[in-house]
Amino acid sequence: MTNRQLHLNVNILTSGFYASAWRTKNIDPFSFADIKHYIRVAQIAERGKFDAVFLADQPALNGRLEYGPTLALEPTIVLTAVAAATEHIGLIATASSTYNEPYNLARRIASLDHVSGGRAGWNVVTTANSAVSRNFGFDNVVAHQTRYERASEFTDVVKALWDSWEDDAFVGDKVSGHFVDTSRVHAINHVGPHFSVAGPLQLPRSPQGRPVVIQAGGSDDGRELAARHAEAIFSVAQTLEEGVDYARDVRARALRLGRQPNEILILPGLTTVIGSTEAEAKRREEELWELLPKDYSLDRLATSLQIDRARLDLDEPLPENIPLPIDGSQTFFLAAVNYGRRNNLTVRQLLRGLGGSTGHRVIIGTPQSIADSIEQWFRAGAADGFNLMPDVLPDGLETFVDTVVPELRRRGLFRTEYKGSTLREHFGLARPASRYAPKVAEAISA
Amino acid sequence: MTNRQLHLNVNILTSGFYASAWRTKNIDPFSFADIKHYIRVAQIAERGKFDAVFLADQPALNGRLEYGPTLALEPTIVLTAVAAATEHIGLIATASSTYNEPYNLARRIASLDHVSGGRAGWNVVTTANSAVSRNFGFDNVVAHQTRYERASEFTDVVKALWDSWEDDAFVGDKVSGHFVDTSRVHAINHVGPHFSVAGPLQLPRSPQGRPVVIQAGGSDDGRELAARHAEAIFSVAQTLEEGVDYARDVRARALRLGRQPNEILILPGLTTVIGSTEAEAKRREEELWELLPKDYSLDRLATSLQIDRARLDLDEPLPENIPLPIDGSQTFFLAAVNYGRRNNLTVRQLLRGLGGSTGHRVIIGTPQSIADSIEQWFRAGAADGFNLMPDVLPDGLETFVDTVVPELRRRGLFRTEYKGSTLREHFGLARPASRYAPKVAEAISA
Repeated sequence: MTNRQLHLNVNILTSGFYASAWRTKNIDPFSFADIKHYIRVAQIAERGKFDAVFLADQPALNGRLEYGPTLALEPTIVLTAVAAATEHIGLIATASSTYNEPYNLARRIASLDHVSGGRAGWNVVTTANSAVSRNFGFDNVVAHQTRYERASEFTDVVKALWDSWEDDAFVGDKVSGHFVDTSRVHAINHVGPHFSVAGPLQLPRSPQGRPVVIQAGGSDDGRELAARHAEAIFSVAQTLEEGVDYARDVRARALRLGRQPNEILILPGLTTVIGSTEAEAKRREEELWELLPKDYSLDRLATSLQIDRARLDLDEPLPENIPLPIDGSQTFFLAAVNYGRRNNLTVRQLLRGLGGSTGHRVIIGTPQSIADSIEQWFRAGAADGFNLMPDVLPDGLETFVDTVVPELRRRGLFRTEYKGSTLREHFGLARPASRYAPKVAEAISA
Repeated sequence: MTNRQLHLNVNILTSGFYASAWRTKNIDPFSFADIKHYIRVAQIAERGKFDAVFLADQPALNGRLEYGPTLALEPTIVLTAVAAATEHIGLIATASSTYNEPYNLARRIASLDHVSGGRAGWNVVTTANSAVSRNFGFDNVVAHQTRYERASEFTDVVKALWDSWEDDAFVGDKVSGHFVDTSRVHAINHVGPHFSVAGPLQLPRSPQGRPVVIQAGGSDDGRELAARHAEAIFSVAQTLEEGVDYARDVRARALRLGRQPNEILILPGLTTVIGSTEAEAKRREEELWELLPKDYSLDRLATSLQIDRARLDLDEPLPENIPLPIDGSQTFFLAAVNYGRRNNLTVRQLLRGLGGSTGHRVIIGTPQSIADSIEQWFRAGAADGFNLMPDVLPDGLETFVDTVVPELRRRGLFRTEYKGSTLREHFGLARPASRYAPKVAEAISA
């Protein structure tokens, strides 16, 4: 028996993980662009005592809009609105290090941390997508290595800015007129290959000291970035073995960089299709699959694999010799290709196994069997928890909260109440001291 | 008699216009970084049926933090939180066209418009400030002309992105699976000297069609930008004549650009120090002035004039031959210098007349005398309303709402209830059609 507890986020992928979710009953098709939807999902997750809501993002219209929703509203705006309608749940915004400026982003996430009382997290992504590039003056995707070098420097700058006010810099003495102890507010004077940023940030250190940094790297560069900066990782793993290997590899990298392995939570993506019986769960999946235009899924897979759509035949296996994409997501590429090859799947079977999407694990089952799988991964060290992507939102999440969560609690694996008020506290992560604060030893000797 | 009505915004300058506001009683010194303060001020303004709350901004720590607050939390985050706690009031965020990317900003403001039900406005600024430059990789302020050229192209791109979905592009037919009519979602394919942006935006057209564009240009380039793009102008005028001249000039420029003069609201900045008698108002101003470190105000003035602080003597007039700053705000420079010269003021008198700040008009008086001045400017064509900057927040606003607003209503100059739900409706501005929508004539002939 262990006191270690699961961590659960809900990834609000518009109307749900299945691109056909919007067509199911009780779903408002417009919910992808309706703040009330995001608030409702977050409130259900908070009722289930989840650690956080998570918003994926890329700044471009992507996918096949004639068939279903796209990522739409900007995540920090959505999460600020969610913050106002919730009390405890963490708020994780994805934002690209390739298409933002570190000063602006550090300030925005710190502002969200202030406004939410310490619930903000930032999921660093490098955004390998040509539709995005074309919204920012580039004809092509920025090269993989450049993106990752920039991401690491970007994150360095953001963290330094978050440290730039010591915790006790604010004075606010009306009588003397002393407002801030400026000896405790520090320029960062960063000069690097990608950025020159003087700082300091213009606002007091936020409740969490530093908002939580999340990363989702699967490639070699991505793993290094995660090992260096991430406090939680939104990973991709189709099998327990992949999950264990990934966790072991990233933790070993972190150790080499001087970090403690338990400073990093591994949270694989997980889609659930829940029924009260296995047959009911299968019928639910069948409906979602039937409503999913195969065209649309083929397109997404071809884009993810960066091959000509015409090379994909629904009733044949994946073609041989698909090269690893240099300028796309290597993570999703490997997840999909390995999954298909390992199981000898036709393209149709592969698409269905992936829920019509691009690489995350989909499990179809009863609350009991889903809890079994979660527990197995958790105990085997493949996961410290999961970034859940319910099939349909909000009702797939509602079912999870009402049926799987109680089962996890019976097994002693998940909290019954929030113990703290910040995302760091939910995640069991320490609040970092500012790099500019006097060290304890110095403070004692002073 | 006219049916024309005043428009009133409150500019939430941290704890108030006076840098000493935080030292007065009943003010929490930390309010500059506390979202509850912004919400409280907005709720008071909404009780007074104001058109909008307005947030100034620059992305850098600026001013003398040892003496008083700085602009801190990021405006779109603050206004999203304010949106959740209010129902009608407009929400105007300042954001720099020099230190943002148009795609990101267009999306963020459109998201705020969605989340708030059509209450968003964007105040375009070009940010002439070297502290900001140093947060974005520049050693010096970006040149005036470059900033204004970029600002105009930036605004073109943002408006095109806001038009990129026609209003009726969304279909959402569950039965057929038709989600969006993609023939009504348009790439903008902008290619210009500063930006290449493909678009379209990734979210449906927002409730206002386009969020309201506000501008604050006083220089020649600024006036051209305002005449071309602004639907409301946050202007600077110390005298009625300056106000009338400015309004006439900007409207003439707009007319030359093919716009209607009444498509632009002129809203000068106005600071109020209110007392139930003239003597009480003067005592209030005296207290704020006494609490204001002269050092601090001298610094601000020297920075604004871009001269060596040592050249300013409190008991002498402004030095002669101060050159117009090329890379700073020409607007505030001219406002301050003209005000001082015209009235033959010593530097001390000038500082006091400016409320220790850099150029906006300060009036000290009773509700009656303040209403008189507001009415005079309004009827003379110097103002369609005002961007109010109460001396101390929230209490200076509370007094305005409880004493000046009723006086304005007695004179038939200000609304007693909101007539609409969007900022455009409050401002009396038409909702623009998307440039991509079929023209009415074509639609009829089709």
